[in-house]
Amino acid sequence: MYDVVIIGGGPAGLSAGIYAARARLKTVILERLMPGGQAAVTDYIENYPGYPEGVPGHELVAKMQEQAEKFGCQILSNEVEAVTIEKKTAATRSENYNWKALIVATGADPRTLDVPGCADFKGRGISFCATCDGALFSDRKVAVVGGGDSAVKEAIYLTKFASHVFVIHRRDKLRAERIIQEKAFKNEKITFVWDSIVTAIKGDQRVEEIHIHNVKTGGEKDVDVDGIFVYIGRMPNTAMINVEKDKAGYIVTDSDMRTSAKGVFAAGDCRSKEHRQVATAVGDGASAAMSAEEYIAENGD
Amino acid sequence: MYDVVIIGGGPAGLSAGIYAARARLKTVILERLMPGGQAAVTDYIENYPGYPEGVPGHELVAKMQEQAEKFGCQILSNEVEAVTIEKKTAATRSENYNWKALIVATGADPRTLDVPGCADFKGRGISFCATCDGALFSDRKVAVVGGGDSAVKEAIYLTKFASHVFVIHRRDKLRAERIIQEKAFKNEKITFVWDSIVTAIKGDQRVEEIHIHNVKTGGEKDVDVDGIFVYIGRMPNTAMINVEKDKAGYIVTDSDMRTSAKGVFAAGDCRSKEHRQVATAVGDGASAAMSAEEYIAENGD
Repeated sequence: MYDVVIIGGGPAGLSAGIYAARARLKTVILERLMPGGQAAVTDYIENYPGYPEGVPGHELVAKMQEQAEKFGCQILSNEVEAVTIEKKTAATRSENYNWKALIVATGADPRTLDVPGCADFKGRGISFCATCDGALFSDRKVAVVGGGDSAVKEAIYLTKFASHVFVIHRRDKLRAERIIQEKAFKNEKITFVWDSIVTAIKGDQRVEEIHIHNVKTGGEKDVDVDGIFVYIGRMPNTAMINVEKDKAGYIVTDSDMRTSAKGVFAAGDCRSKEHRQVATAVGDGASAAMSAEEYIAENGD
Repeated sequence: MYDVVIIGGGPAGLSAGIYAARARLKTVILERLMPGGQAAVTDYIENYPGYPEGVPGHELVAKMQEQAEKFGCQILSNEVEAVTIEKKTAATRSENYNWKALIVATGADPRTLDVPGCADFKGRGISFCATCDGALFSDRKVAVVGGGDSAVKEAIYLTKFASHVFVIHRRDKLRAERIIQEKAFKNEKITFVWDSIVTAIKGDQRVEEIHIHNVKTGGEKDVDVDGIFVYIGRMPNTAMINVEKDKAGYIVTDSDMRTSAKGVFAAGDCRSKEHRQVATAVGDGASAAMSAEEYIAENGD
């Protein structure tokens, strides 16, 4: 029996682990892959407060992991497949973990492009977050893939830094809000590439060129870019638990990370909110652990 | 004219400054004292994720300040006395600052004990946060001053670490919830000192002893303790702005830090929420700046 079981070992889960273990709660983090989440595969993080020089993502999460373990948090490599709230159990293929409080910090996976080169250049020119990485592309050319609100907003945002932004969309019109569309159309730094999909990403050490296929005309072309921002959706990893979620599947919480189920808390990217950053994940994780501690203290320890 | 004016230079304000300035918004932080807020006067911070060895409070906030300034955020020493939302103006004694978006990160001041020694030992045995500093008092004796929910909850929390906890309360009964009271009365590590106030705090380098006065009997006594946790209330610094607040005066926001006034955001300890930590302040600050950036992008730049 654990006091606190945390599902997911990204910045939110690790921060929850630091706080819960430091509060002398018996705490385990169950992580399906390597600890660190999306942050671990982020080349360089410039905007995590406290690191004025920036820090490689894997280094930052390694520090968080060390900190959680220092306070006695266990971190196990094991994928939770189902949570039974009534029985207070998280089940992996091999074992059942019992909890007094549960923190879901399972993150969300950006949908990626299934094309040659995409996996190779992740963190080396391919990004899923303009707020995170936009500033790294000053006076360079970048491409944005997608046509929804996020894609178009981020294309506008990227014009603060980039010399030019190509928006590559597989249809001939945008799904984004009209006011956002109008701003984008007026922006001289943005070129729309309609009816098109990216079919390959090329480069030596980093992204240098993308290959584009026009789905209507069948035409092909190469465009030189230093970065690609992919905004074709995101999937929260929340299938294993039955609590209130928003339409897109993100877990709904109050401002102190309580979900619709008593004793169950959610933190980080899997939570319903607008901004998903290491800084916000860390705040969520700390708050979820404090709420879990209070829940355990009040509900018969 | 600034894009973003941030009132307050603690971790929430500095993080908002990092994010806003990095998004190429013209940003100023107006801080009435020294940057850093409560964190700057915190001796040692063990639970800010990313610092496994811990970090002195003043060092952590100096890094955040360096980071904000590196991205071009201005930090000025100037106290905002009034905000006029309709005119988008923050007024100090000498100047008016105009903003497109405003972030209020003014913090909250814990009420302190007005007794000899209190100011001298702040951060050296006197604390206002058991979650922050409790773990530093393993197997030591501590005192908690207060009789409300926070005081009694934190006394119970402190028994995880301390060898003994004295709760010093000026009345003969507690104001805390009954269930919390019962837990505290059952806890063998807690002694209640009723009808009593602390009249002096003594020690060499750090707190060693407190002097207690019984307000009913007039009796005096000294108690050896290594730490004092003061829980006699907290005052949010929100008088200068007229937005929706909760009963205690904290600013109400949605989960993305928007207040009841368009273009006005709040972050950190001045916000209505339960948990107030450097980690949560940083998350709030990042989120507030991202919401401010979106607000400016959508409302005619």
